[in-house]
Amino acid sequence: MTRTVVALSGGVGGAKLALGLARVVPEGTLSVIANTGDDFRHLGLAVSPDIDTLVYTLSGLADPVQGWGRRDETWHFMAALAQLGENTWFRLGDADLAMHVARTRRLAAGESLSQFTAQCCRNLGIATRILPMTDDPVRTLVRTDTGWLDFQDYFVREKCVPAVRELAYPGAEAAHALPEAIAALSDPDLRAVIICPSNPYLSIDPILAIPALRAALKRCPAPIVAISPIIAGRAIKGPTAKLMAELGLVPGASEVALHYAQIIDVLVVDEIDAGLELPGVRTVSARTLMTTLEDREQLAEAVLAAADEFSFHHSQDRLP
Amino acid sequence: MTRTVVALSGGVGGAKLALGLARVVPEGTLSVIANTGDDFRHLGLAVSPDIDTLVYTLSGLADPVQGWGRRDETWHFMAALAQLGENTWFRLGDADLAMHVARTRRLAAGESLSQFTAQCCRNLGIATRILPMTDDPVRTLVRTDTGWLDFQDYFVREKCVPAVRELAYPGAEAAHALPEAIAALSDPDLRAVIICPSNPYLSIDPILAIPALRAALKRCPAPIVAISPIIAGRAIKGPTAKLMAELGLVPGASEVALHYAQIIDVLVVDEIDAGLELPGVRTVSARTLMTTLEDREQLAEAVLAAADEFSFHHSQDRLP
Repeated sequence: MTRTVVALSGGVGGAKLALGLARVVPEGTLSVIANTGDDFRHLGLAVSPDIDTLVYTLSGLADPVQGWGRRDETWHFMAALAQLGENTWFRLGDADLAMHVARTRRLAAGESLSQFTAQCCRNLGIATRILPMTDDPVRTLVRTDTGWLDFQDYFVREKCVPAVRELAYPGAEAAHALPEAIAALSDPDLRAVIICPSNPYLSIDPILAIPALRAALKRCPAPIVAISPIIAGRAIKGPTAKLMAELGLVPGASEVALHYAQIIDVLVVDEIDAGLELPGVRTVSARTLMTTLEDREQLAEAVLAAADEFSFHHSQDRLP
Repeated sequence: MTRTVVALSGGVGGAKLALGLARVVPEGTLSVIANTGDDFRHLGLAVSPDIDTLVYTLSGLADPVQGWGRRDETWHFMAALAQLGENTWFRLGDADLAMHVARTRRLAAGESLSQFTAQCCRNLGIATRILPMTDDPVRTLVRTDTGWLDFQDYFVREKCVPAVRELAYPGAEAAHALPEAIAALSDPDLRAVIICPSNPYLSIDPILAIPALRAALKRCPAPIVAISPIIAGRAIKGPTAKLMAELGLVPGASEVALHYAQIIDVLVVDEIDAGLELPGVRTVSARTLMTTLEDREQLAEAVLAAADEFSFHHSQDRLP
């Protein structure tokens, strides 16, 4: 029996743990359901930031410093684009551009995003399955004091400066979950579902906003383990803590626990937060800051151990 | 009175003389009508090879060795594209790619090719006007023994190896000539029209195949001077001589003279061909091989002198 693992992931932070998981489970047994709410058209090109970060991270092509984009990237395209008076707020590296041009061409030729992504994984030697949450369009929108912004306008162009009042995921309600994602969540040999330490509101909620995916998680027999992206009230990277405060929430693992309470079985918090009382959810602590490759593997092991432990107790409960 | 000059040009060979002309006439008085029969969609991107060669040559950005593309170009996009299993027979450099992405975006946004090209010239500091022959689609097709090929398939993918039996320019008959091109050819202060030493069949004939442009040339009061791209029966570059032989023509300046006889007033042939008898057209010889920048300027001067001399004799003829 080959046991499988499913991860839900956004971009950089999630991809780090996905890589750790991919390295500690048997090859080809990990599926990552990727957020596509950040996807957008830029310069006419179909850009899928979270999928690309996963593809580059899992293939070893990722830039090790910034975590997104490709290592040893060059920027001659952007310099020439600036000469032509085009927008340059979204940086597309020369090699990275191949991904967007290829994706745009294949989508126009009638391929689905998931087909293109699977082909990418084959071409780049990635054994992990990277599954877009849906092939339908879903957008993450952010309401600021000056109105609604597309996610990338908020995240990249405005550098997360505007205060966020509300989030919306238009398209999610009507989106068809990727059948492979539903199948992966229904696998009788599923060992665990891992909600990566991505931004709960910007990266994970768009996935959970797709009714069929949320329902598949609810009925999933395997333990669901989330990792708090907040350590001692602060985000490891990105706007999570700032966003929580702007939404009227207290940035901290408690709020993350509350947010995921209806979905998860276990929350993994950082060692620093080990003493926190988190009512309503089983809590395990581990070192969650992933600086080195070993950190990622160790967190992956800890998360899977937490899932296995939950399964063990859960099966004990069921004993007559 | 500012006298103007119009050139008709394809890619590399034509752009060399266009640069020479731009350097010897007063700034901003040269218009180049560019062949767009080579234009095509590649990887979903709108590519205009002859316009781009003119833009890069006239802005000083061109690769001085190959004559097309940009100097100091890098190829990381192509390498990444190959990793993704995409076609790589048409080489797009990293910086060059900005041109195609920008053009594709602006065409999709409703701009015309001529508007985009004019904007490029402004952005890159080109005083010469580069005028696409039309904003309508015209294709150059090549019939080989295995059937019709799109121009770039023949020229780049097949490297001009298949024997050519016939040429066609679908779209040309119905295409609207660019109004600015017609206006330039009708300018009362027009000093000369120069048909650059481009391939007559692949680069100039698509321009002449547009009825309004051919008519404007016929009624043009200024002298029309062509430069033979064939020297001593051989092409300086590219498939001109091979193509002529395949079409049953004897590669040589005589055949070029015959080809242009109904349009031009003067044919400039190379010094080596100075002794040739070319019935039906006035002939002038000059050094037509353009290796250095000085060569280009000298040929430009010689061509304009030939036009001026023709104008002088022509005005003498008209004296009572």
